[in-house]
Amino acid sequence: MDFKRPSFELLSIGNELLIGRIPNTNGQWLARQLTLLGGFCARMTVIRDDLEEISNAFREILRRSPRFLIASGGLGPTYDDLTLEGLSKALEIPLKLNSDAVSWVTQRYEDLYRRGLIRDPKLTPQRMKMALLPLGSKPLRNPIGAAPGVLLETGETRIICLPGVPEELKAIFEDSVKEMIVQEIGCLHFVESKFTVQGVGESSLAPVVEEAVRRYSPQVYIKTHPKGGSPNVTVEFHVTSQGRDREIIKNIVDEAVKYLKENAIRLGGKITDSD
Amino acid sequence: MDFKRPSFELLSIGNELLIGRIPNTNGQWLARQLTLLGGFCARMTVIRDDLEEISNAFREILRRSPRFLIASGGLGPTYDDLTLEGLSKALEIPLKLNSDAVSWVTQRYEDLYRRGLIRDPKLTPQRMKMALLPLGSKPLRNPIGAAPGVLLETGETRIICLPGVPEELKAIFEDSVKEMIVQEIGCLHFVESKFTVQGVGESSLAPVVEEAVRRYSPQVYIKTHPKGGSPNVTVEFHVTSQGRDREIIKNIVDEAVKYLKENAIRLGGKITDSD
Repeated sequence: MDFKRPSFELLSIGNELLIGRIPNTNGQWLARQLTLLGGFCARMTVIRDDLEEISNAFREILRRSPRFLIASGGLGPTYDDLTLEGLSKALEIPLKLNSDAVSWVTQRYEDLYRRGLIRDPKLTPQRMKMALLPLGSKPLRNPIGAAPGVLLETGETRIICLPGVPEELKAIFEDSVKEMIVQEIGCLHFVESKFTVQGVGESSLAPVVEEAVRRYSPQVYIKTHPKGGSPNVTVEFHVTSQGRDREIIKNIVDEAVKYLKENAIRLGGKITDSD
Repeated sequence: MDFKRPSFELLSIGNELLIGRIPNTNGQWLARQLTLLGGFCARMTVIRDDLEEISNAFREILRRSPRFLIASGGLGPTYDDLTLEGLSKALEIPLKLNSDAVSWVTQRYEDLYRRGLIRDPKLTPQRMKMALLPLGSKPLRNPIGAAPGVLLETGETRIICLPGVPEELKAIFEDSVKEMIVQEIGCLHFVESKFTVQGVGESSLAPVVEEAVRRYSPQVYIKTHPKGGSPNVTVEFHVTSQGRDREIIKNIVDEAVKYLKENAIRLGGKITDSD
Protein backbone atom coordinates (compact mmCIF):
# COMPACT_ATOMS: atom_id res chain seq x y z
CA MET A 1 0.00 0.00 0.00
CA ASP A 2 1.31 3.47 -0.81
CA PHE A 3 -0.96 5.15 1.75
CA LYS A 4 -2.78 4.64 5.03
CA ARG A 5 -6.35 3.53 4.44
CA PRO A 6 -8.92 4.94 6.88
CA SER A 7 -10.62 2.16 8.80
CA PHE A 8 -14.34 1.49 8.90
CA GLU A 9 -16.56 -0.62 11.09
CA LEU A 10 -20.10 -1.52 10.16
CA LEU A 11 -22.86 -2.11 12.69
CA SER A 12 -26.02 -3.74 11.34
CA ILE A 13 -29.02 -3.60 13.65
CA GLY A 14 -32.06 -5.83 13.17
CA ASN A 15 -33.55 -9.07 14.45
CA GLU A 16 -34.41 -10.09 10.88
CA LEU A 17 -30.69 -10.63 10.28
CA LEU A 18 -30.19 -12.78 13.38
CA ILE A 19 -33.16 -15.06 12.80
CA GLY A 20 -31.80 -15.59 9.28
CA ARG A 21 -34.83 -14.12 7.54
CA ILE A 22 -32.60 -12.20 5.13
CA PRO A 23 -28.88 -12.02 4.34
CA ASN A 24 -27.06 -8.85 5.32
CA THR A 25 -27.18 -7.21 1.89
CA ASN A 26 -26.94 -3.69 3.35
CA GLY A 27 -23.69 -4.68 5.06
CA GLN A 28 -22.34 -6.16 1.86
CA TRP A 29 -23.34 -3.10 -0.20
CA LEU A 30 -21.71 -0.70 2.27
CA ALA A 31 -18.54 -2.84 2.51
CA ARG A 32 -18.30 -2.83 -1.29
CA GLN A 33 -18.72 0.95 -1.56
CA LEU A 34 -16.13 1.65 1.13
CA THR A 35 -13.67 -0.73 -0.48
CA LEU A 36 -14.14 0.81 -3.93
CA LEU A 37 -13.54 4.26 -2.42
CA GLY A 38 -10.28 3.03 -0.85
CA GLY A 39 -11.50 2.38 2.69
CA PHE A 40 -10.55 -0.58 4.85
CA CYS A 41 -13.54 -2.35 6.36
CA ALA A 42 -12.17 -3.95 9.52
CA ARG A 43 -15.25 -5.51 11.04
CA MET A 44 -18.98 -5.96 10.68
CA THR A 45 -21.15 -6.55 13.74
CA VAL A 46 -24.77 -7.64 13.57
CA ILE A 47 -26.96 -7.18 16.64
CA ARG A 48 -30.60 -7.39 17.68
CA ASP A 49 -33.04 -4.52 18.19
CA ASP A 50 -32.23 -4.35 21.88
CA LEU A 51 -31.34 -1.12 23.67
CA GLU A 52 -28.65 -2.62 25.91
CA GLU A 53 -27.05 -4.52 23.02
CA ILE A 54 -27.04 -1.43 20.81
CA SER A 55 -25.38 0.79 23.39
CA ASN A 56 -22.85 -1.94 24.27
CA ALA A 57 -21.97 -2.47 20.62
CA PHE A 58 -21.47 1.27 20.02
CA ARG A 59 -19.19 1.46 23.06
CA GLU A 60 -17.15 -1.59 22.03
CA ILE A 61 -16.64 -0.32 18.50
CA LEU A 62 -15.71 3.19 19.65
CA ARG A 63 -13.06 1.67 21.91
CA ARG A 64 -11.34 0.38 18.76
CA SER A 65 -11.39 3.95 17.30
CA PRO A 66 -12.19 3.33 13.65
CA ARG A 67 -12.24 6.52 11.54
CA PHE A 68 -15.83 5.75 10.47
CA LEU A 69 -18.54 3.74 12.20
CA ILE A 70 -21.49 3.22 9.89
CA ALA A 71 -24.59 1.84 11.59
CA SER A 72 -27.65 0.75 9.65
CA GLY A 73 -31.19 -0.04 10.72
CA GLY A 74 -33.39 1.00 13.62
CA LEU A 75 -34.07 4.65 12.65
CA GLY A 76 -37.76 4.30 11.84
CA PRO A 77 -40.95 5.10 13.74
CA THR A 78 -41.68 1.74 15.41
CA TYR A 79 -41.20 0.65 19.00
CA ASP A 80 -38.14 -1.45 18.15
CA ASP A 81 -36.27 1.26 16.21
CA LEU A 82 -33.77 1.96 18.98
CA THR A 83 -30.52 2.94 17.30
CA LEU A 84 -30.42 6.61 18.31
CA GLU A 85 -31.55 5.87 21.85
CA GLY A 86 -28.78 3.25 22.06
CA LEU A 87 -26.20 5.67 20.68
CA SER A 88 -27.28 8.39 23.09
CA LYS A 89 -27.01 5.90 25.98
CA ALA A 90 -23.56 4.74 24.84
CA LEU A 91 -22.20 8.28 24.67
CA GLU A 92 -24.21 9.60 27.63
CA ILE A 93 -25.53 12.40 25.43
CA PRO A 94 -29.22 13.37 25.70
CA LEU A 95 -31.62 13.02 22.77
CA LYS A 96 -32.98 16.36 21.58
CA LEU A 97 -35.36 17.39 18.81
CA ASN A 98 -33.26 18.66 15.93
CA SER A 99 -34.93 21.57 14.16
CA ASP A 100 -33.70 20.65 10.65
CA ALA A 101 -34.82 17.07 11.17
CA VAL A 102 -38.21 18.21 12.51
CA SER A 103 -38.77 20.36 9.46
CA TRP A 104 -37.74 17.55 7.05
CA VAL A 105 -39.97 15.00 8.76
CA THR A 106 -42.84 17.52 8.80
CA GLN A 107 -42.38 18.29 5.09
CA ARG A 108 -42.25 14.59 4.29
CA TYR A 109 -45.61 13.81 5.92
CA GLU A 110 -47.24 16.94 4.51
CA ASP A 111 -46.07 15.89 1.08
CA LEU A 112 -47.42 12.35 1.53
CA TYR A 113 -50.72 13.86 2.71
CA ARG A 114 -50.97 16.18 -0.31
CA ARG A 115 -50.40 13.22 -2.60
CA GLY A 116 -53.23 11.35 -0.87
CA LEU A 117 -50.94 8.64 0.50
CA ILE A 118 -51.66 9.18 4.19
CA ARG A 119 -54.83 10.22 5.96
CA ASP A 120 -53.31 12.62 8.44
CA PRO A 121 -50.03 14.54 8.21
CA LYS A 122 -49.70 15.40 11.89
CA LEU A 123 -46.46 14.68 13.72
CA THR A 124 -47.45 11.81 16.00
CA PRO A 125 -44.95 10.81 18.72
CA GLN A 126 -43.85 7.93 16.46
CA ARG A 127 -43.05 10.33 13.60
CA MET A 128 -41.50 12.94 15.88
CA LYS A 129 -39.14 10.25 17.24
CA MET A 130 -37.25 10.28 13.92
CA ALA A 131 -36.19 13.89 14.57
CA LEU A 132 -34.98 13.15 18.10
CA LEU A 133 -31.19 13.00 17.69
CA PRO A 134 -28.26 12.74 20.12
CA LEU A 135 -27.24 16.30 20.99
CA GLY A 136 -24.53 17.55 18.64
CA SER A 137 -25.63 15.35 15.72
CA LYS A 138 -26.08 16.60 12.19
CA PRO A 139 -29.07 15.13 10.34
CA LEU A 140 -28.43 13.83 6.81
CA ARG A 141 -31.31 14.42 4.42
CA ASN A 142 -33.25 11.31 3.35
CA PRO A 143 -34.34 12.01 -0.24
CA ILE A 144 -36.85 9.15 -0.41
CA GLY A 145 -38.04 8.36 3.12
CA ALA A 146 -38.92 10.00 6.42
CA ALA A 147 -36.06 9.04 8.77
CA PRO A 148 -33.01 11.27 8.29
CA GLY A 149 -29.53 9.80 8.56
CA VAL A 150 -27.37 11.01 11.43
CA LEU A 151 -23.75 12.15 11.62
CA LEU A 152 -22.08 12.48 14.99
CA GLU A 153 -18.35 13.00 15.56
CA THR A 154 -16.79 11.74 18.76
CA GLY A 155 -13.09 11.32 19.52
CA GLU A 156 -11.38 9.89 16.45
CA THR A 157 -14.58 8.54 14.98
CA ARG A 158 -17.29 9.79 12.68
CA ILE A 159 -20.46 7.89 13.49
CA ILE A 160 -22.96 7.69 10.65
CA CYS A 161 -26.40 6.13 11.19
CA LEU A 162 -28.44 5.11 8.15
CA PRO A 163 -31.94 3.62 7.89
CA GLY A 164 -32.27 -0.11 7.20
CA VAL A 165 -34.55 0.24 4.15
CA PRO A 166 -32.01 -0.48 1.38
CA GLU A 167 -33.19 2.25 -1.02
CA GLU A 168 -33.05 4.88 1.74
CA LEU A 169 -29.65 3.68 2.98
CA LYS A 170 -28.25 3.89 -0.55
CA ALA A 171 -29.79 7.29 -1.27
CA ILE A 172 -28.37 8.92 1.88
CA PHE A 173 -25.00 7.24 1.30
CA GLU A 174 -24.81 8.58 -2.27
CA ASP A 175 -26.07 12.04 -1.30
CA SER A 176 -24.19 12.76 1.91
CA VAL A 177 -21.73 10.04 2.93
CA LYS A 178 -19.76 9.25 -0.22
CA GLU A 179 -18.35 12.76 -0.56
CA MET A 180 -17.31 12.73 3.12
CA ILE A 181 -15.29 9.55 2.51
CA VAL A 182 -13.74 10.84 -0.71
CA GLN A 183 -12.69 14.03 1.12
CA GLU A 184 -11.04 11.88 3.77
CA ILE A 185 -9.31 9.38 1.51
CA GLY A 186 -8.64 11.38 -1.64
CA CYS A 187 -8.72 9.80 -5.04
CA LEU A 188 -7.96 6.10 -4.70
CA HIS A 189 -8.33 3.18 -7.01
CA PHE A 190 -9.27 -0.40 -6.38
CA VAL A 191 -8.22 -3.00 -8.96
CA GLU A 192 -9.33 -6.61 -8.89
CA SER A 193 -8.88 -9.60 -11.13
CA LYS A 194 -10.59 -12.98 -10.98
CA PHE A 195 -9.97 -16.33 -12.60
CA THR A 196 -10.75 -19.97 -11.94
CA VAL A 197 -8.44 -22.96 -12.00
CA GLN A 198 -9.90 -26.34 -12.84
CA GLY A 199 -8.26 -29.64 -12.05
CA VAL A 200 -5.95 -28.71 -9.15
CA GLY A 201 -7.14 -28.58 -5.55
CA GLU A 202 -6.63 -25.70 -3.15
CA SER A 203 -4.05 -27.56 -1.07
CA SER A 204 -1.90 -28.28 -4.14
CA LEU A 205 -2.09 -24.63 -5.15
CA ALA A 206 -1.32 -23.38 -1.63
CA PRO A 207 2.52 -23.36 -2.04
CA VAL A 208 2.18 -21.36 -5.27
CA VAL A 209 -0.07 -18.87 -3.53
CA GLU A 210 2.41 -18.59 -0.65
CA GLU A 211 5.24 -17.84 -3.08
CA ALA A 212 3.09 -15.25 -4.87
CA VAL A 213 2.26 -13.64 -1.52
CA ARG A 214 6.00 -13.46 -0.73
CA ARG A 215 6.57 -11.76 -4.10
CA TYR A 216 3.64 -9.36 -4.39
CA SER A 217 2.30 -8.72 -0.90
CA PRO A 218 1.39 -6.32 0.73
CA GLN A 219 0.66 -4.36 -2.47
CA VAL A 220 -1.43 -7.25 -3.74
CA TYR A 221 -3.90 -9.36 -1.81
CA ILE A 222 -4.48 -12.90 -3.05
CA LYS A 223 -7.37 -15.05 -1.93
CA THR A 224 -8.51 -18.49 -3.11
CA HIS A 225 -12.00 -19.92 -2.82
CA PRO A 226 -12.57 -23.64 -3.45
CA LYS A 227 -15.76 -24.16 -5.45
CA GLY A 228 -17.63 -27.46 -5.42
CA GLY A 229 -15.85 -30.71 -4.65
CA SER A 230 -14.69 -33.54 -6.83
CA PRO A 231 -14.88 -34.66 -9.61
CA ASN A 232 -14.50 -31.09 -10.89
CA VAL A 233 -12.03 -29.59 -8.46
CA THR A 234 -12.17 -25.83 -9.08
CA VAL A 235 -10.57 -22.98 -7.20
CA GLU A 236 -11.50 -19.35 -7.73
CA PHE A 237 -8.72 -16.77 -7.42
CA HIS A 238 -9.37 -13.19 -6.41
CA VAL A 239 -6.44 -10.79 -6.68
CA THR A 240 -6.83 -7.17 -5.54
CA SER A 241 -4.86 -4.01 -4.89
CA GLN A 242 -5.54 -0.41 -3.96
CA GLY A 243 -3.50 2.73 -4.53
CA ARG A 244 -3.34 6.27 -5.80
CA ASP A 245 -1.95 5.40 -9.24
CA ARG A 246 -4.23 3.12 -11.22
CA GLU A 247 -1.51 2.22 -13.72
CA ILE A 248 0.92 1.05 -11.05
CA ILE A 249 -1.56 -1.11 -9.16
CA LYS A 250 -3.00 -2.52 -12.36
CA ASN A 251 0.50 -3.60 -13.43
CA ILE A 252 1.31 -5.34 -10.19
CA VAL A 253 -2.06 -7.14 -10.12
CA ASP A 254 -1.47 -8.25 -13.72
CA GLU A 255 2.00 -9.54 -12.80
CA ALA A 256 0.69 -11.50 -9.82
CA VAL A 257 -2.12 -12.97 -11.93
CA LYS A 258 0.35 -13.99 -14.63
CA TYR A 259 2.58 -15.69 -12.05
CA LEU A 260 -0.35 -17.54 -10.47
CA LYS A 261 -1.81 -18.69 -13.79
CA GLU A 262 1.54 -19.95 -15.12
CA ASN A 263 2.15 -21.98 -12.00
CA ALA A 264 -1.39 -23.34 -11.85
CA ILE A 265 -0.98 -24.52 -15.44
CA ARG A 266 2.39 -26.06 -14.55
CA LEU A 267 0.58 -28.10 -11.87
CA GLY A 268 -1.88 -29.40 -14.47
CA GLY A 269 -4.63 -26.82 -14.00
CA LYS A 270 -6.82 -25.31 -16.68
CA ILE A 271 -7.67 -21.60 -16.47
CA THR A 272 -11.34 -20.77 -16.94
CA ASP A 273 -13.56 -17.73 -16.32
CA SER A 274 -10.67 -15.32 -16.50
CA ASP A 275 -11.34 -11.53 -16.59
CA MET B 1 -41.40 -17.65 26.13
CA ASP B 2 -42.07 -20.76 28.15
CA PHE B 3 -38.38 -21.73 28.35
CA LYS B 4 -34.87 -20.33 28.36
CA ARG B 5 -33.39 -20.40 24.88
CA PRO B 6 -29.66 -21.22 24.68
CA SER B 7 -27.73 -18.32 23.20
CA PHE B 8 -25.53 -18.48 20.12
CA GLU B 9 -22.95 -16.18 18.66
CA LEU B 10 -21.70 -16.52 15.11
CA LEU B 11 -18.21 -15.52 14.00
CA SER B 12 -17.68 -15.29 10.24
CA ILE B 13 -14.05 -15.10 9.16
CA GLY B 14 -13.06 -13.95 5.67
CA ASN B 15 -11.84 -10.85 3.83
CA GLU B 16 -14.26 -11.61 0.98
CA LEU B 17 -17.10 -10.59 3.33
CA LEU B 18 -15.46 -7.32 4.35
CA ILE B 19 -14.60 -6.15 0.85
CA GLY B 20 -18.24 -6.83 -0.06
CA ARG B 21 -17.42 -9.49 -2.66
CA ILE B 22 -20.22 -11.72 -1.35
CA PRO B 23 -23.05 -11.43 1.19
CA ASN B 24 -22.72 -13.45 4.38
CA THR B 25 -24.93 -16.32 3.26
CA ASN B 26 -23.22 -18.80 5.62
CA GLY B 27 -24.10 -16.55 8.54
CA GLN B 28 -27.69 -16.28 7.36
CA TRP B 29 -27.99 -20.03 6.84
CA LEU B 30 -26.60 -20.80 10.31
CA ALA B 31 -28.79 -18.15 11.97
CA ARG B 32 -31.83 -19.67 10.27
CA GLN B 33 -31.00 -23.23 11.38
CA LEU B 34 -30.37 -22.19 14.99
CA THR B 35 -33.59 -20.22 15.10
CA LEU B 36 -35.63 -23.09 13.65
CA LEU B 37 -34.10 -25.40 16.29
CA GLY B 38 -35.15 -22.99 19.05
CA GLY B 39 -31.82 -21.21 19.60
CA PHE B 40 -31.37 -17.51 20.17
CA CYS B 41 -28.77 -15.95 17.92
CA ALA B 42 -27.53 -12.96 19.87
CA ARG B 43 -24.82 -11.60 17.61
CA MET B 44 -22.93 -12.12 14.39
CA THR B 45 -19.39 -10.79 14.01
CA VAL B 46 -17.54 -10.65 10.70
CA ILE B 47 -13.77 -10.26 10.75
CA ARG B 48 -10.81 -10.41 8.39
CA ASP B 49 -8.32 -13.25 7.94
CA ASP B 50 -5.96 -11.72 10.47
CA LEU B 51 -4.46 -13.66 13.36
CA GLU B 52 -4.69 -10.84 15.91
CA GLU B 53 -8.28 -10.01 14.92
CA ILE B 54 -9.31 -13.67 15.11
CA SER B 55 -7.89 -14.22 18.57
CA ASN B 56 -9.34 -10.91 19.82
CA ALA B 57 -12.76 -11.77 18.46
CA PHE B 58 -12.74 -15.21 20.10
CA ARG B 59 -11.76 -13.64 23.43
CA GLU B 60 -14.43 -10.95 23.22
CA ILE B 61 -17.17 -13.43 22.39
CA LEU B 62 -16.12 -15.88 25.11
CA ARG B 63 -16.29 -13.03 27.64
CA ARG B 64 -20.03 -12.83 26.84
CA SER B 65 -20.37 -16.60 27.55
CA PRO B 66 -22.81 -17.72 24.88
CA ARG B 67 -23.73 -21.41 25.11
CA PHE B 68 -22.51 -21.94 21.52
CA LEU B 69 -19.98 -20.01 19.48
CA ILE B 70 -20.07 -21.11 15.85
CA ALA B 71 -17.17 -19.84 13.76
CA SER B 72 -17.03 -20.31 10.01
CA GLY B 73 -14.22 -19.91 7.50
CA GLY B 74 -10.44 -20.10 7.68
CA LEU B 75 -10.01 -23.86 8.17
CA GLY B 76 -8.47 -24.65 4.80
CA PRO B 77 -4.91 -25.26 3.61
CA THR B 78 -3.91 -21.74 2.51
CA TYR B 79 -1.66 -19.19 4.20
CA ASP B 80 -4.61 -17.03 5.27
CA ASP B 81 -6.65 -19.84 6.86
CA LEU B 82 -5.91 -18.82 10.43
CA THR B 83 -8.96 -19.71 12.50
CA LEU B 84 -7.47 -22.52 14.59
CA GLU B 85 -4.24 -20.63 15.17
CA GLY B 86 -6.32 -17.66 16.30
CA LEU B 87 -8.42 -19.83 18.59
CA SER B 88 -5.35 -21.48 20.09
CA LYS B 89 -3.83 -18.04 20.71
CA ALA B 90 -7.05 -16.75 22.30
CA LEU B 91 -7.23 -19.69 24.71
CA GLU B 92 -3.48 -20.07 25.19
CA ILE B 93 -3.78 -23.72 24.22
CA PRO B 94 -1.13 -25.25 21.93
CA LEU B 95 -1.97 -26.64 18.50
CA LYS B 96 -1.37 -30.36 18.23
CA LEU B 97 -1.83 -32.91 15.46
CA ASN B 98 -5.04 -34.78 16.16
CA SER B 99 -4.77 -38.44 15.20
CA ASP B 100 -8.40 -38.78 14.02
CA ALA B 101 -8.06 -35.64 11.96
CA VAL B 102 -4.74 -36.81 10.49
CA SER B 103 -6.28 -40.09 9.43
CA TRP B 104 -9.34 -38.38 7.88
CA VAL B 105 -7.22 -35.86 5.97
CA THR B 106 -4.91 -38.69 4.82
CA GLN B 107 -7.85 -40.77 3.65
CA ARG B 108 -9.34 -37.81 1.84
CA TYR B 109 -6.21 -37.13 -0.24
CA GLU B 110 -5.64 -40.84 -0.90
CA ASP B 111 -9.18 -41.06 -2.14
CA LEU B 112 -8.76 -38.00 -4.40
CA TYR B 113 -5.54 -39.56 -5.71
CA ARG B 114 -7.21 -42.91 -6.45
CA ARG B 115 -9.93 -41.08 -8.35
CA GLY B 116 -7.30 -39.33 -10.44
CA LEU B 117 -8.20 -35.89 -9.11
CA ILE B 118 -4.83 -35.00 -7.62
CA ARG B 119 -1.31 -35.88 -8.74
CA ASP B 120 0.15 -36.63 -5.37
CA PRO B 121 -1.61 -37.78 -2.18
CA LYS B 122 1.18 -36.95 0.24
CA LEU B 123 0.45 -34.88 3.34
CA THR B 124 2.18 -31.59 2.54
CA PRO B 125 2.53 -29.08 5.39
CA GLN B 126 -0.49 -27.22 3.93
CA ARG B 127 -2.62 -30.36 4.10
CA MET B 128 -1.28 -31.41 7.50
CA LYS B 129 -2.24 -27.98 8.87
CA MET B 130 -5.92 -29.00 8.68
CA ALA B 131 -5.30 -31.71 11.29
CA LEU B 132 -3.50 -29.35 13.67
CA LEU B 133 -6.13 -28.60 16.31
CA PRO B 134 -6.12 -26.78 19.64
CA LEU B 135 -5.32 -29.36 22.32
CA GLY B 136 -8.51 -30.87 23.74
CA SER B 137 -10.54 -30.36 20.54
CA LYS B 138 -12.69 -33.00 18.96
CA PRO B 139 -12.61 -33.08 15.16
CA LEU B 140 -15.97 -33.23 13.36
CA ARG B 141 -15.91 -35.33 10.21
CA ASN B 142 -16.21 -33.44 6.93
CA PRO B 143 -18.15 -35.74 4.60
CA ILE B 144 -17.35 -33.80 1.43
CA GLY B 145 -14.11 -31.88 1.94
CA ALA B 146 -10.71 -32.17 3.57
CA ALA B 147 -10.85 -29.75 6.52
CA PRO B 148 -12.59 -31.31 9.54
CA GLY B 149 -14.83 -29.18 11.74
CA VAL B 150 -13.68 -28.61 15.31
CA LEU B 151 -15.48 -28.80 18.64
CA LEU B 152 -13.85 -27.36 21.74
CA GLU B 153 -15.57 -26.81 25.08
CA THR B 154 -14.34 -24.05 27.35
CA GLY B 155 -16.09 -22.60 30.38
CA GLU B 156 -19.80 -22.23 29.58
CA THR B 157 -19.25 -22.29 25.85
CA ARG B 158 -19.09 -24.92 23.16
CA ILE B 159 -16.95 -23.56 20.35
CA ILE B 160 -17.65 -25.07 16.94
CA CYS B 161 -15.48 -24.19 13.94
CA LEU B 162 -16.78 -24.95 10.45
CA PRO B 163 -15.17 -24.48 7.02
CA GLY B 164 -16.29 -21.52 4.91
CA VAL B 165 -17.15 -23.55 1.80
CA PRO B 166 -20.96 -23.51 2.06
CA GLU B 167 -21.50 -27.18 1.09
CA GLU B 168 -18.93 -28.35 3.65
CA LEU B 169 -20.28 -26.06 6.37
CA LYS B 170 -23.80 -27.39 5.78
CA ALA B 171 -22.70 -31.03 5.64
CA ILE B 172 -20.81 -30.88 8.95
CA PHE B 173 -23.66 -28.94 10.56
CA GLU B 174 -26.22 -31.53 9.48
CA ASP B 175 -23.99 -34.48 10.41
CA SER B 176 -22.53 -33.41 13.75
CA VAL B 177 -23.80 -30.08 15.03
CA LYS B 178 -27.56 -30.25 14.66
CA GLU B 179 -27.96 -33.20 17.01
CA MET B 180 -25.79 -31.46 19.62
CA ILE B 181 -28.14 -28.46 19.55
CA VAL B 182 -31.28 -30.61 19.66
CA GLN B 183 -29.85 -32.45 22.69
CA GLU B 184 -29.29 -29.11 24.38
CA ILE B 185 -32.58 -27.46 23.54
CA GLY B 186 -34.99 -30.38 23.33
CA CYS B 187 -37.92 -30.35 20.96
CA LEU B 188 -38.87 -26.77 20.22
CA HIS B 189 -41.03 -25.20 17.60
CA PHE B 190 -40.72 -21.96 15.71
CA VAL B 191 -43.86 -20.50 14.17
CA GLU B 192 -43.91 -17.51 11.86
CA SER B 193 -46.52 -15.68 9.86
CA LYS B 194 -46.08 -12.99 7.24
CA PHE B 195 -48.41 -10.56 5.52
CA THR B 196 -48.19 -7.23 3.74
CA VAL B 197 -50.27 -4.11 4.26
CA GLN B 198 -50.74 -1.78 1.34
CA GLY B 199 -51.81 1.84 1.60
CA VAL B 200 -50.83 2.69 5.20
CA GLY B 201 -47.33 3.84 6.14
CA GLU B 202 -45.20 2.35 8.90
CA SER B 203 -45.56 5.42 11.12
CA SER B 204 -49.37 5.23 10.95
CA LEU B 205 -49.26 1.54 11.81
CA ALA B 206 -46.79 2.04 14.66
CA PRO B 207 -49.43 2.68 17.40
CA VAL B 208 -51.27 -0.50 16.35
CA VAL B 209 -48.03 -2.47 16.54
CA GLU B 210 -47.29 -1.01 19.96
CA GLU B 211 -50.70 -2.07 21.24
CA ALA B 212 -50.23 -5.57 19.78
CA VAL B 213 -46.82 -5.79 21.47
CA ARG B 214 -48.45 -4.85 24.79
CA ARG B 215 -51.03 -7.61 24.27
CA TYR B 216 -48.96 -10.47 22.86
CA SER B 217 -45.32 -9.87 23.84
CA PRO B 218 -43.02 -11.53 24.94
CA GLN B 219 -44.63 -14.73 23.60
CA VAL B 220 -44.92 -13.15 20.19
CA TYR B 221 -42.39 -11.00 18.39
CA ILE B 222 -43.73 -8.50 15.87
CA LYS B 223 -41.57 -6.74 13.32
CA THR B 224 -42.52 -4.41 10.46
CA HIS B 225 -40.47 -3.77 7.34
CA PRO B 226 -41.38 -0.84 5.07
CA LYS B 227 -41.09 -1.86 1.40
CA GLY B 228 -40.61 0.68 -1.34
CA GLY B 229 -41.76 4.28 -0.94
CA SER B 230 -44.75 6.13 -2.32
CA PRO B 231 -46.96 5.93 -4.32
CA ASN B 232 -47.43 2.32 -3.17
CA VAL B 233 -46.77 2.47 0.54
CA THR B 234 -46.39 -1.14 1.66
CA VAL B 235 -45.33 -2.56 5.00
CA GLU B 236 -44.40 -6.18 5.51
CA PHE B 237 -45.31 -7.76 8.86
CA HIS B 238 -43.38 -10.67 10.33
CA VAL B 239 -44.85 -12.28 13.43
CA THR B 240 -42.98 -15.09 15.20
CA SER B 241 -43.04 -17.20 18.32
CA GLN B 242 -41.16 -20.16 19.76
CA GLY B 243 -42.19 -22.73 22.33
CA ARG B 244 -42.54 -26.35 23.31
CA ASP B 245 -46.19 -26.69 22.29
CA ARG B 246 -46.76 -25.98 18.62
CA GLU B 247 -50.55 -25.64 19.11
CA ILE B 248 -50.21 -22.99 21.80
CA ILE B 249 -47.69 -20.83 19.96
CA LYS B 250 -49.57 -21.19 16.68
CA ASN B 251 -52.74 -19.94 18.38
CA ILE B 252 -51.12 -16.90 19.87
CA VAL B 253 -49.39 -16.00 16.59
CA ASP B 254 -52.75 -16.35 14.81
CA GLU B 255 -54.41 -14.10 17.38
CA ALA B 256 -51.75 -11.43 17.05
CA VAL B 257 -51.95 -11.59 13.24
CA LYS B 258 -55.73 -11.27 13.38
CA TYR B 259 -55.48 -8.23 15.67
CA LEU B 260 -52.88 -6.57 13.43
CA LYS B 261 -54.78 -7.23 10.20
CA GLU B 262 -58.10 -5.96 11.58
CA ASN B 263 -56.52 -2.73 12.76
CA ALA B 264 -54.52 -2.23 9.56
CA ILE B 265 -57.77 -2.56 7.60
CA ARG B 266 -59.48 -0.11 9.97
CA LEU B 267 -56.74 2.43 9.07
CA GLY B 268 -57.49 1.99 5.38
CA GLY B 269 -54.94 -0.71 4.59
CA LYS B 270 -55.33 -3.61 2.19
CA ILE B 271 -53.89 -6.99 3.17
CA THR B 272 -51.82 -8.69 0.47
CA ASP B 273 -49.36 -11.60 0.33
CA SER B 274 -50.76 -13.20 3.44
CA ASP B 275 -49.63 -16.74 4.46
